[in-house]
Amino acid sequence: MSTIVNAPNALSIPQSIEDNPGDFRMLTGDRPTGLLHVGHYFGTLQGRVRLQNLGVDTLVLIADYQVLTDRDAADRLPHYVEEFLLDYLAVGIDPSRSTIFAHSAVPALNQLLLPFLSLVSTAELSRNPTVKEEIAASGRDAVSGLMFTYPVHQAADLLFCNADIAPVGDDQIPHLELTRTIARRFNDRYEPLFTLPQALLSRAPRLRGLDGSAKMGKSLSNAIPLSASADETARMIRTATTDADRHITYDPEGRPEVSNLLLIASLCTGHDPHELADGLDGAAALKRLLTEAVNEHFAPIRLRRQEYARDRAQLRAILRDGNARASAIADDTLARVHRAMRTAY
Amino acid sequence: MSTIVNAPNALSIPQSIEDNPGDFRMLTGDRPTGLLHVGHYFGTLQGRVRLQNLGVDTLVLIADYQVLTDRDAADRLPHYVEEFLLDYLAVGIDPSRSTIFAHSAVPALNQLLLPFLSLVSTAELSRNPTVKEEIAASGRDAVSGLMFTYPVHQAADLLFCNADIAPVGDDQIPHLELTRTIARRFNDRYEPLFTLPQALLSRAPRLRGLDGSAKMGKSLSNAIPLSASADETARMIRTATTDADRHITYDPEGRPEVSNLLLIASLCTGHDPHELADGLDGAAALKRLLTEAVNEHFAPIRLRRQEYARDRAQLRAILRDGNARASAIADDTLARVHRAMRTAY
Repeated sequence: MSTIVNAPNALSIPQSIEDNPGDFRMLTGDRPTGLLHVGHYFGTLQGRVRLQNLGVDTLVLIADYQVLTDRDAADRLPHYVEEFLLDYLAVGIDPSRSTIFAHSAVPALNQLLLPFLSLVSTAELSRNPTVKEEIAASGRDAVSGLMFTYPVHQAADLLFCNADIAPVGDDQIPHLELTRTIARRFNDRYEPLFTLPQALLSRAPRLRGLDGSAKMGKSLSNAIPLSASADETARMIRTATTDADRHITYDPEGRPEVSNLLLIASLCTGHDPHELADGLDGAAALKRLLTEAVNEHFAPIRLRRQEYARDRAQLRAILRDGNARASAIADDTLARVHRAMRTAY
Repeated sequence: MSTIVNAPNALSIPQSIEDNPGDFRMLTGDRPTGLLHVGHYFGTLQGRVRLQNLGVDTLVLIADYQVLTDRDAADRLPHYVEEFLLDYLAVGIDPSRSTIFAHSAVPALNQLLLPFLSLVSTAELSRNPTVKEEIAASGRDAVSGLMFTYPVHQAADLLFCNADIAPVGDDQIPHLELTRTIARRFNDRYEPLFTLPQALLSRAPRLRGLDGSAKMGKSLSNAIPLSASADETARMIRTATTDADRHITYDPEGRPEVSNLLLIASLCTGHDPHELADGLDGAAALKRLLTEAVNEHFAPIRLRRQEYARDRAQLRAILRDGNARASAIADDTLARVHRAMRTAY
């Protein structure tokens, strides 16, 4: 994709945005299927806050509709939504500048799914890697209509607010391509209403799970949640998988588990992982170093989190306010879509 | 389907509805792809008015989102929507009792598509006959996401207002089955919010086109539109296809074109088509008889149509009012759906 803005890591921001941050709107979001963790923090949350603080208009979406797979998911949803809110606020998303909102509270955004569905073929949907993965995992027939149309819903997320930039990992590039295709087709068929969003490609390293598996996952219990206490963090790190070699070295290929712990410590302290490895005698020493690094780095964030957690009414008000702001934007976009499609009678 | 209410023809209404019409809500609708014609009138419009006049709560949906296939369709849309409104009002849909509304104006209805999509698999969507027909016609890959998810949108139409009855032709039974499946799954998974609508099966004969083709179609120019004048009606009937046999008989199998004209005359006059055929000498006489029958039957309807057409502001107000009523119902349903799905934070 020719228009990708390359960011060498999560904290490197292209000059065009540095120069005129106020010209940009960013949409990012998360599916509330578990607790946000240190992988999310270094992979995306830190970058969002940095962009927000530069002056980029920031929208953060809690994609609650996309996790409704069964009754249990619904029962857990209010809890996770509240935890997400606390995490966003704790890491520095500022509700007086940024808009935190949930899918379910913005009907006009969701309604865009219908016109946008008319602009894509089922073949294009089937080719989407996320949909393909689901098809591979559960079989073509079992994939739900919601999962099948998920890329179009994502297009509605970015287009309803005319986001200029979408901070994404490279696995999200095909989604963004489809969004751009939908925007282009709408603009060609009706009126040039939609901005084609650009990917702000994060090169932040993906963290492995503490159990050594390839991914630290919010629903996998191999992650250190942002909400964990210092003691919980210590306990979790103590059980982390390492290897038999007492001599600690940073070698992501050869020693993925040990190197992953060093990488997390490196991200927390800002020190090179090779340097951190030097002089460490055994896995226990590495784990002590890591525990200290994580707890020190996240102490102020956890403190802010506790403060926000004291006032649940304020939390709900923050979400209500964000929902209202997102709805105002979506209502305005939908009205313009209706005029363009001649459905404003 | 065990729960089908059998109606031997469009005007026969089950006893349960006759007894307590106020207990029933009906949703019907049309896709504005052309002009409503005499086939619609005898097939469905007449029955809707009859049910409305009995006291059944009647909602009439103009499915405008479902016709957005290209720029041309969008350009024609406002015209067709206005013509539909005029037709509904002219045949006797009473806006003080019934609710006429358009998909595009009821975001909360359309939003139901998302939770409902989570309740069906792509396999179930692929099995739907209308979707299958589209796949057969245009190839699996070319079918749009909107067409593929159309049965779920139809489910949202019936369920948002908790319609008890849906007057349908037998080709619509699979759609209704899927609607009932979605309602059942939602009720089982979350809370029993949704009524399972019953099909009110119309046995009204399907009219052939004036050109002899199997279907009188609103986009096929082989139909007599409700909006046609007496002169236009005469001209259209004059060009109707007949056969070489001067002796007119009612024989739908052997002489489909001639019999179709007799059938239309029979529906207009209430006389048996065999009786009407008796003594007719040649196709020209049949066409004179039919022209007179159609023009006489539709004269009061066309007069009412002209009266409504004089006041476009009133027309727009009627649609706005219907949209507002449908939206109030949809907003209420969506709020209950959110409570059930735990997405009301």
